Amino acid sequence: MNRPWQKNLINIEPYTAGEQPKSDDIIKLNANENPYPPSPLVQKAIAGFDAESLRLYPPMDAAPLRRAAAKFYGLDPEWVFAGNGSDDILATAFRAFFNSPEPILYPDITYSFYPVWCDLLRVPYKTIPVDSSFCVHTEDYYIPNGGIVLPNPNAPTTIALGLGEIEELLEHNTDSIVIIDEAYADFSDVSCVPLVKKYPNLVVTQTLSKSRSLAGMRAAIAIADPYLIKYLDAVKDSYNSYPVDAVAIKAACAAFEDREYFEETCRRVIATRERTAAELRRLGFILPDSGTNFLFVTHPEHKAEDIFLFLRERGIYIRYFKKPRIDSYLRITVGTDEQMDKLLSALRELC
Amino acid sequence: MNRPWQKNLINIEPYTAGEQPKSDDIIKLNANENPYPPSPLVQKAIAGFDAESLRLYPPMDAAPLRRAAAKFYGLDPEWVFAGNGSDDILATAFRAFFNSPEPILYPDITYSFYPVWCDLLRVPYKTIPVDSSFCVHTEDYYIPNGGIVLPNPNAPTTIALGLGEIEELLEHNTDSIVIIDEAYADFSDVSCVPLVKKYPNLVVTQTLSKSRSLAGMRAAIAIADPYLIKYLDAVKDSYNSYPVDAVAIKAACAAFEDREYFEETCRRVIATRERTAAELRRLGFILPDSGTNFLFVTHPEHKAEDIFLFLRERGIYIRYFKKPRIDSYLRITVGTDEQMDKLLSALRELC
Repeated sequence: MNRPWQKNLINIEPYTAGEQPKSDDIIKLNANENPYPPSPLVQKAIAGFDAESLRLYPPMDAAPLRRAAAKFYGLDPEWVFAGNGSDDILATAFRAFFNSPEPILYPDITYSFYPVWCDLLRVPYKTIPVDSSFCVHTEDYYIPNGGIVLPNPNAPTTIALGLGEIEELLEHNTDSIVIIDEAYADFSDVSCVPLVKKYPNLVVTQTLSKSRSLAGMRAAIAIADPYLIKYLDAVKDSYNSYPVDAVAIKAACAAFEDREYFEETCRRVIATRERTAAELRRLGFILPDSGTNFLFVTHPEHKAEDIFLFLRERGIYIRYFKKPRIDSYLRITVGTDEQMDKLLSALRELC
Repeated sequence: MNRPWQKNLINIEPYTAGEQPKSDDIIKLNANENPYPPSPLVQKAIAGFDAESLRLYPPMDAAPLRRAAAKFYGLDPEWVFAGNGSDDILATAFRAFFNSPEPILYPDITYSFYPVWCDLLRVPYKTIPVDSSFCVHTEDYYIPNGGIVLPNPNAPTTIALGLGEIEELLEHNTDSIVIIDEAYADFSDVSCVPLVKKYPNLVVTQTLSKSRSLAGMRAAIAIADPYLIKYLDAVKDSYNSYPVDAVAIKAACAAFEDREYFEETCRRVIATRERTAAELRRLGFILPDSGTNFLFVTHPEHKAEDIFLFLRERGIYIRYFKKPRIDSYLRITVGTDEQMDKLLSALRELC
């Protein structure tokens, strides 16, 4: 085709869908999905959902979800914001809080979403290198900035800063909004939620896709001082394009209500992770301690891409990033014990 | 509060929630929601949804929804794109197709979303005035431009262009992408879907929120030449923040499968609309013929705001826009016959 309107098309490569493993036999450890289903209360909430109500728009503020999350954390609902997935919340927060001519700061190895939205929203940014062990050093962030966004634990490195370090970061950045992206924090022993009452410039974001097994839906929350929550509401209200859908609100509420199931499945993922990490080290892999539901591993005698291809041939899908600094590493999602045993036995064959 | 970080907050008024009528007695004709519930097949799809699968991400391309919509229209699935609501699709299309230094064109009275996303995406735009009867004249769009977006029928004016006029517009704009936003087209007798095979620069967008009664969910489609669909996919894939959720995919498929229910509920809304329009004219109201599920009315002897307040006191909520050119008009969603009888009897009292 050769038409004049083609010149106005976006200059990115048309998408070619990657291979999507379809077989039921495969072991899918490439998307950091939870190996356990959501709480039985979620099943009940969906099965009992009144579909007739779908003719109406959902409550634009997703108030029931805010209340459920607030109750879970012992906060008033004014401290909670809800969004159509974690990225939606981050995009909203970038618009609400990152309006300085100074660059915002985040680690050079981190979630790939940040530069995409900085570019889209014209937010200047500066990446701060993690060290050769992938550690974030908070003192590198004691420079003039227009805001900070830091996943804790960081991804794909799996490494979590302690609460003391986060407090240090906050004490040195009282002039900026600091967003701590806790997508994986439920699999660590650190959460900054208790700090929001002490630091009015702290925003904590969380998703229900990982620890609450709702990747199939779009629901996430932010926790911060009500003063900041009002700005998130203002931005969201200024276009209102992405409300949380009515079924997702019910399902997410049910997920927050079942504390026992949530804690038990997190414990199981953590136990499997620790056992798998120990076995991998025995096989010669090198990996940092993980505070997430995945492991970030390298092997001194085997190329990462070779391991990736070796496992794929055996129906085990993990994640390989062909990117500078991390192209000798692999990201392996923590599955069930049975899945990890199959992974380990394949790797024993290789090593 | 007075902190240094406040200077980087976005410069918009913090949101104050408007009054949300909570009582079950009220008649809600202010959001263009369908008075009829979604198809019984939707209820069945949700009740039977396997919640365990929610631990996994949904298919990022929402392929089942594309197939269902394609089947409905007798097209191959390559002609269909799916998104997390109609705004998501429009935002994706603006990014994919509107990259010209020339301004894109749309009517001065139209959907309020367009300027918001043009500003966000740095798309230059020029609004083309509708005439004093709110009609769009396609010849006004025969000027250099970087693209065109036109709702047909237009909102809130309710007026639809005929297929001949749209073809004229397309014939004079072969150098631009033309987006026809068919949010309400199912309530008219005009759809541009059959034109996509003839015009490779035409993109038709549709939502499931109105005619298919799924406002509570986020699901919408675009129909265009597969060449253009690939660009929508490329943009969506470049950030992937807003997949269609897994339950919404199932519900939307069910809505497309039940053609009979869909056609019957559209017919009922149209019949109620025509009867209501005739009654309103008898009461002295002036209104254009509507191709939507709402009416856009004015009364020579009563101020729009007074009518709005009069009805609100009686528990009937309609929409009043305090905006230039349309502040003497009211937007009234077509409800059930019973709801419209209550509206008409309140208005008889007034007039």
